[in-house]
Amino acid sequence: MEKMDLHTAFTLLEPGPVILVTTHDGHKSNIMTISWTMVMDFTPSFALTTGPWNYSYTALTQTKECVLSIPTIDLLDQVVGVGTCSGSTTDKFAAFGLTPLPAEHIKAPLIKECLANIECRVTEIMPEQHIVVLEGLEAWFDKERQETRTLHAKGDGTFIVDGHQLDRREMMRSKLPDGV
Amino acid sequence: MEKMDLHTAFTLLEPGPVILVTTHDGHKSNIMTISWTMVMDFTPSFALTTGPWNYSYTALTQTKECVLSIPTIDLLDQVVGVGTCSGSTTDKFAAFGLTPLPAEHIKAPLIKECLANIECRVTEIMPEQHIVVLEGLEAWFDKERQETRTLHAKGDGTFIVDGHQLDRREMMRSKLPDGV
Repeated sequence: MEKMDLHTAFTLLEPGPVILVTTHDGHKSNIMTISWTMVMDFTPSFALTTGPWNYSYTALTQTKECVLSIPTIDLLDQVVGVGTCSGSTTDKFAAFGLTPLPAEHIKAPLIKECLANIECRVTEIMPEQHIVVLEGLEAWFDKERQETRTLHAKGDGTFIVDGHQLDRREMMRSKLPDGV
Repeated sequence: MEKMDLHTAFTLLEPGPVILVTTHDGHKSNIMTISWTMVMDFTPSFALTTGPWNYSYTALTQTKECVLSIPTIDLLDQVVGVGTCSGSTTDKFAAFGLTPLPAEHIKAPLIKECLANIECRVTEIMPEQHIVVLEGLEAWFDKERQETRTLHAKGDGTFIVDGHQLDRREMMRSKLPDGV
């Protein structure tokens, strides 16, 4: 994992991949699988839809920290496994063979096996709407990784794998933020 | 375009495709391109990040109506074109050869060329966070369409095309909403 330019980290979430979110409640680390995410600005800022139905929600809202980890298709069974059990009864890092790495700014860990990790601070909680707003603090990317294709959950138990890429950079030049 | 089950419409947005959003300001219809969307629940409810920097924002917040249209890869140049000009000076339906179809519940039009359309009502506007929350009212799907692959904007002027699909329905059965 090497540091990447924080101002390009929004490009990890913008395509809408299913992600893993780690938290640390002071005693132990936990992971949840989330598809309901949204980029909010380039600084970067992100929104998650989550609530008390996720065991991680207590740690997320009390510590006001989390890591957004981007898994690739070779991690699909871990992604589904993490999303279908609870941190209240399962040590998910151990159960799914995932490796916590220390983050730089927060206690929630990076996930070594993921393509990228974004350390985040909670900037706002909207309990009524179940929205948590995050600010990215540091972003990490594994340049050594061979498999870089991410997964897009359909929400019906199927997942779409990244296919080929189309380039419209020239057409969009005027609309892209600096440095992207 | 045929009606589809409204309670499965969240599966159109959950994979995180770039979408087109139509509005009608009382005089004319307009379209914007948006990637910053999030599913919020299965009813369905959705969030958009948008604000006064989008010309459509005035119509969206005043009429409290819009249509979320799902374009496929054959529409990429229209998607980029719509996203790089303003409705203040351009009739985007005419300029990009897109066909407005009347919606059932609202004045904002469906887009005939898109794979699917979701008629929506604005339920909440958070001007400070630039979040608009939507409730789906009716969903339409074009079953005749040959090209069904959607696009995922990376935010750097490139777009990822849907690749193949992986099935984990059995593993996820306990977590899926009824009827999906």
